[in-house]
Amino acid sequence: MEIYLDNHSGTKTDPQVLEAMLPYLKEYYGNPQSLHSLGTKSKQAIEKAREQVASLIEATPQEIYFTSCGSESNNLAIKGIAWAYKEKGKHIIVSQIEHFSVLYSAKRLQQQGFEVTYLPVDKYGFVSIEELKESIRKDTILVSIQHANPEIGTIQPIEEIAKVCKEHNIFFHTDAVATCGVIEIDVKKLNVDLLSLSGSQFYGPKGSAALYIKKGIRVIPQIDGGIQEGGYRSGLENVAGIVGLGKASEIAKNELQENYKKLLNLRDKLISELPKRIEYIYLNGPLENRLPNNVNISIEFIEGEGIFLLLNNHGIYVTSGSACASKALKMSHVLTAINVDPAVGQGSILMTLSKYNTEHEIDYILNVFPEVVKKLREISPLYSYFKKTGERKPAGPGTDYEHHHDDFELHHT
Amino acid sequence: MEIYLDNHSGTKTDPQVLEAMLPYLKEYYGNPQSLHSLGTKSKQAIEKAREQVASLIEATPQEIYFTSCGSESNNLAIKGIAWAYKEKGKHIIVSQIEHFSVLYSAKRLQQQGFEVTYLPVDKYGFVSIEELKESIRKDTILVSIQHANPEIGTIQPIEEIAKVCKEHNIFFHTDAVATCGVIEIDVKKLNVDLLSLSGSQFYGPKGSAALYIKKGIRVIPQIDGGIQEGGYRSGLENVAGIVGLGKASEIAKNELQENYKKLLNLRDKLISELPKRIEYIYLNGPLENRLPNNVNISIEFIEGEGIFLLLNNHGIYVTSGSACASKALKMSHVLTAINVDPAVGQGSILMTLSKYNTEHEIDYILNVFPEVVKKLREISPLYSYFKKTGERKPAGPGTDYEHHHDDFELHHT
Repeated sequence: MEIYLDNHSGTKTDPQVLEAMLPYLKEYYGNPQSLHSLGTKSKQAIEKAREQVASLIEATPQEIYFTSCGSESNNLAIKGIAWAYKEKGKHIIVSQIEHFSVLYSAKRLQQQGFEVTYLPVDKYGFVSIEELKESIRKDTILVSIQHANPEIGTIQPIEEIAKVCKEHNIFFHTDAVATCGVIEIDVKKLNVDLLSLSGSQFYGPKGSAALYIKKGIRVIPQIDGGIQEGGYRSGLENVAGIVGLGKASEIAKNELQENYKKLLNLRDKLISELPKRIEYIYLNGPLENRLPNNVNISIEFIEGEGIFLLLNNHGIYVTSGSACASKALKMSHVLTAINVDPAVGQGSILMTLSKYNTEHEIDYILNVFPEVVKKLREISPLYSYFKKTGERKPAGPGTDYEHHHDDFELHHT
Repeated sequence: MEIYLDNHSGTKTDPQVLEAMLPYLKEYYGNPQSLHSLGTKSKQAIEKAREQVASLIEATPQEIYFTSCGSESNNLAIKGIAWAYKEKGKHIIVSQIEHFSVLYSAKRLQQQGFEVTYLPVDKYGFVSIEELKESIRKDTILVSIQHANPEIGTIQPIEEIAKVCKEHNIFFHTDAVATCGVIEIDVKKLNVDLLSLSGSQFYGPKGSAALYIKKGIRVIPQIDGGIQEGGYRSGLENVAGIVGLGKASEIAKNELQENYKKLLNLRDKLISELPKRIEYIYLNGPLENRLPNNVNISIEFIEGEGIFLLLNNHGIYVTSGSACASKALKMSHVLTAINVDPAVGQGSILMTLSKYNTEHEIDYILNVFPEVVKKLREISPLYSYFKKTGERKPAGPGTDYEHHHDDFELHHT
């Protein structure tokens, strides 16, 4: 049995999506910029996809710019706005729990003369509207706060944030990679200026993503060159990938309500049942305003790596630690920012669901997980100390995880 | 009958390449950064592809960085080196006939405080080694000259250029998008520091490309974020695309000699036969040191658009004008740089061959092409004036194509 609970790292491609892509990997190989019949075929296909993506987020097709991944969309949004409006000001605000592609874009801009405020979050991962207001300066040009955090599931109060930004005449970008195709998005209602999305998060192919840029707003391209994507993103289009993203958007729109309910059921079963079967277990992130596909738990006295490995041996694929830095052994920047006790945070496991998961799979996990924890606690010196003394061993040196900006230093592979 | 002669805009994907990709669009959907079994499967696949690409150009796998397109590779090379070594100097040299992604990267850097020399070329498109030497300054940090020009086929004397760069301790990047997989490339022999390549040019999928960066050289990433590609190119990997690029590289290496001979035969048949059947026809670019798949001709008294359309009606797909700016109606920046008479350059047609073209197709073209030209000349006032008077009408106002840097202004779609 194989159970995939690592969907925030990328979902399985919907077979209908692949089917839509295949002609563009076979007979329709024209360059969309070529004017002959084969080029026109590709051009029409990407314009249809643009409509499909626009429709999913209630934008117009002219506001959709295709990119190669969510990280590229985030880079284009943040660096693109910064360089386009630098005469207006050079101050940017992002939250401390943004995706690395946002945090490092901000860091890059710092090296190039911009100033960045990293907004803290509360213990559930929410930014404070008051703190946002206080951090706004006369030279603030951009706020970038994610729609939802893929690691702890926190859905931010985007409309409220947008309202503050509008009042101060500041551009607002939201990284919606974790939400687009998962929960309803209406860019007009959210009132955002730029929004990143990625097909890999909602059953589209890897290598397919987009940036919504509200009409009238300009960005400096990050990939300069030809005439593609209105000059904002040059390079030969990944036609099949774009077609796949379009199809995935169409399917997501049709299935959104149904999938949402399904995910919520499965998620809530895990969240309510696991603590009944495992002692000293904690949920990270909020219960309300949480992604319907996100379960992040910390299990005391054992390490996430151990849980991860034993679950893997059972064919259950989860994540230990942070999303895109799973090879870094220290606690993720997100858990650090919400002040998870490092002694507990070490035993964190992230499970992210998809429409392909079943109740049967969840029942299987609910049986296997407690066994895995039991096995690991049997060999845990921390646990045996606790059992003997009733006391927790204090966290040793090197576990002082007080938040520094350096916490999201780049980890070279 | 459909005859595709627009291969510099992207080749048909080899069915073996698609076959190699399919498992990664279906069952192997793990994120290469995930440590579970499904992630490992993807990781192994991209590392195998890295070896295949490295082998094609005689690099080591650690020197290959995957990107989403040739334009991205060129941007990463040029901006990446410029920002990484700006303390050393802020002067860059590129040729006037580079791809737009090189020219616009250079232009972007100019806006950001760098200086750029645009090296002219001779009437065949070759840069002059002497002029290169003269343009080098104490603060020159990078030279970027393409391996071959996709529009007029000119293969530059890369080894000589590299020698000059080495002597002056300047980094040398070459855009090998037009050559990689088409002619033999050995990065050690060419002695280049960075080299761009794209799978879409040698029967790999669109959306797959790479940048070779010689060991020891660093670049500033253009897409900042996670841990992918050694920190030089962040974002979820397009696993299937990368696998396709790897497979295409393996096939290209095996078939290189055979395909080269085949292409050369077809090309030379077109180049030698067309002038026998059509009067007042001129070859653009050199006869020696020319891409084996490139035929670029100017046909007097008629317009490229007309030829293009009538050939399209016969199922023959070619390009009129410049490569990536075919929607711009003015003469391409490449034809301008080699001083093609604009009155003649208007009637330019680019035909680029692939391994899938056959001698039968070439024979068909040799029959159709003269008929098309005849038909267009029958309705051409320029031609009837010439026939009546024996004189060519002088080019009117607005056809002064003297080269300005503004010639490669961005054309928004």
